[in-house]
Amino acid sequence: MINIAVLGYGTVGSGVVEVLDTNRECISQRVGEEIRVKYVLDLRDFPGDPVQNILVHNFEEIIRDEDVKIVVEVMGGIEPAYTFVKRSLLAGKSVATSNKALVAKHGAELLSIAKEKQINFLFEASVGGGIPIIRPLNSSMTADEIEEITGILNGTTNYMLTKMFYEGAGYEEVLRQAQENGYAEKNPEADVEGYDACRKIAILSSLISGHQVDFEDIYTEGITEITERDMEYAKQMQMTIKLLASSRRSGECLSAIVAPCLLENTHPLFGVNGVFNAIFVHGNVLGDAMFYGSGAGKLPTASAVVADVVEEAKNLNRNVMTMWKSDKLKLQDKGDTIRRFFVRITGNAEAMKTYIESIFGPVQIVMLPDVEEEFGFLTGRMTERAYEECAAKFPNIIRMIRMQEQSGSKE
Amino acid sequence: MINIAVLGYGTVGSGVVEVLDTNRECISQRVGEEIRVKYVLDLRDFPGDPVQNILVHNFEEIIRDEDVKIVVEVMGGIEPAYTFVKRSLLAGKSVATSNKALVAKHGAELLSIAKEKQINFLFEASVGGGIPIIRPLNSSMTADEIEEITGILNGTTNYMLTKMFYEGAGYEEVLRQAQENGYAEKNPEADVEGYDACRKIAILSSLISGHQVDFEDIYTEGITEITERDMEYAKQMQMTIKLLASSRRSGECLSAIVAPCLLENTHPLFGVNGVFNAIFVHGNVLGDAMFYGSGAGKLPTASAVVADVVEEAKNLNRNVMTMWKSDKLKLQDKGDTIRRFFVRITGNAEAMKTYIESIFGPVQIVMLPDVEEEFGFLTGRMTERAYEECAAKFPNIIRMIRMQEQSGSKE
Repeated sequence: MINIAVLGYGTVGSGVVEVLDTNRECISQRVGEEIRVKYVLDLRDFPGDPVQNILVHNFEEIIRDEDVKIVVEVMGGIEPAYTFVKRSLLAGKSVATSNKALVAKHGAELLSIAKEKQINFLFEASVGGGIPIIRPLNSSMTADEIEEITGILNGTTNYMLTKMFYEGAGYEEVLRQAQENGYAEKNPEADVEGYDACRKIAILSSLISGHQVDFEDIYTEGITEITERDMEYAKQMQMTIKLLASSRRSGECLSAIVAPCLLENTHPLFGVNGVFNAIFVHGNVLGDAMFYGSGAGKLPTASAVVADVVEEAKNLNRNVMTMWKSDKLKLQDKGDTIRRFFVRITGNAEAMKTYIESIFGPVQIVMLPDVEEEFGFLTGRMTERAYEECAAKFPNIIRMIRMQEQSGSKE
Repeated sequence: MINIAVLGYGTVGSGVVEVLDTNRECISQRVGEEIRVKYVLDLRDFPGDPVQNILVHNFEEIIRDEDVKIVVEVMGGIEPAYTFVKRSLLAGKSVATSNKALVAKHGAELLSIAKEKQINFLFEASVGGGIPIIRPLNSSMTADEIEEITGILNGTTNYMLTKMFYEGAGYEEVLRQAQENGYAEKNPEADVEGYDACRKIAILSSLISGHQVDFEDIYTEGITEITERDMEYAKQMQMTIKLLASSRRSGECLSAIVAPCLLENTHPLFGVNGVFNAIFVHGNVLGDAMFYGSGAGKLPTASAVVADVVEEAKNLNRNVMTMWKSDKLKLQDKGDTIRRFFVRITGNAEAMKTYIESIFGPVQIVMLPDVEEEFGFLTGRMTERAYEECAAKFPNIIRMIRMQEQSGSKE
């Protein structure tokens, strides 16, 4: 029997207890021993819930119990999660967490403590919820240099953009629907501004580079400015708009960004709809791969946490996770990244095309039926700095949306 | 330094040597030691190829060299691969293979030898080429009961069906194109009759059940009968036709089948096109997940083989792979599986609907524009046995195609 403690009895915490109970038999078979939840830590009481019998309000009871070999941290936020996790690791207890903020900020340090102690700090659920991505990166794609990792990592915004695409609905309307359906918080800022996706791509970037990538260094743009008309232009070009969190190798650097991007209908991420998440990976020998599934939700997230517990239980005195070093990786300056840009601009396409092309080089004009006051154009590949210099000459630009091309695709 | 031997210098074998060379540095970092190809076994000579220096024609040279810790078997076929692999394992050498025929037939025995010897027998590349699926099933989805696994596991047939869907081309024409493009063999039987996919789903079924599933027991139907008109009906219903290899839990049994199936456009597998493969998995707590990538090809397949080598190198004296027992799993009788059936039938829909529904129960009529001599109907859910009994009353049935619904979807 292996004893564990669960810190936090919210959505994910209660899911972890439920999954361990529902699949008790097959989990025991896989581990070779039973996993028993000895403690649940929460400030609240849960009268009538069976968990009440094992509920504690004081972390000290857990840390001083040498029977507890694995600690599950599903409280969220930096403190007290960070203190509890660090003390657990230092006390020789493996930790599994779903806490993306904690991993993005302190992952390197916590991994190095786990390595030193020959235990494990695992965080599969912190990115992509139930989708296996951390472990495949760590133990399956080990023959490859990962050249790109691009994800739809936030279910709320993907639900909203999917509705805008398929139903022609507006931003405010889909946000209200998302809130009514429980897919968006009352304060949706972390989702719609891209902050959630940013922490997740910071974690993935750290993993593929082996160095610390600070989320504060990643340029992040949300979807709050995206309109029905932007989506109409996307459709006109047989594309869609998705909030992408992307990290691409560029020489010794990584180029990382979170932004709404145009995506062609041949891209594997094109068809990832609703609250689903997916992560596209391009390896230098593997080529393209994609991992798809539920990016959030009580049971899918708990499934990933419990899978980490299973791995930790099978490796009680053996470190299995690749470390990322705490020295910071320099990200490529956003101005140096090369891509195509879609631009909406007021005026008449026929009259302006020659002038636009004299500045931007050859562009592809995109017009919407029954829209006369504006049009769109798609530039060739250029650096973002060059784009900005060109764009400065056009005060009548309404909006710019970046286009995401598949790795290896050439003009 | 860890010495390995590669058995077979064909497409995959030369890919393995190439990947180890191309990514030497990052692979060494991950293993903690360099991986060195000490021998390549092939009957042929390769004058001018650097491999010539390490080429041997006699397996005995490899088996008696105690320096060789890992053997890569990429010859294909049952013999002599089986003998070589078994002898390697018995001699304490871990084995990585891409050989689906070998794994489907002898997987249980070879895994049990590896376990006994505390070494490893890994076969990620045997299913889905470069797509990580075996290892995620073995080490990521360990909190779940896997209730369904359904794959597009054959790139040749998926290329052909994609062309038929998007270009309205006929079977013979797309087969010729596939052969011209090198996607299909001159003798395409193993692909188009579903034999290749059948061995792969047998392996996956064994893994998710933990028992031997013999490929000979899996009902297998190829795509040779699928016509342009079938595809037109599929489009009319907003579906497509894919060659699916599927295994579903049904009580204590698995229900496994390989057949061309109708797939709704909301199914994650719907958009998997061309030579790409994908594997859809439904877990009882995880929900839906999908793994997508290159199912074949020299480098993607080699990437998966080398990832197995990396894992074996990191676990030289430690068995990591879940075993499947050699006792056979009883598959559910095909007659007992429940699904919906699409039927093409000659005659007039209006005149026949009442009679059809008196036999099949409520059906959904599907008509093609400008086609008068026949029509289609989609039955409700019924057992395949009940379907066959009903269908026996209609000598004018042209074709039946099974429909694949998503796990958990209810009428």
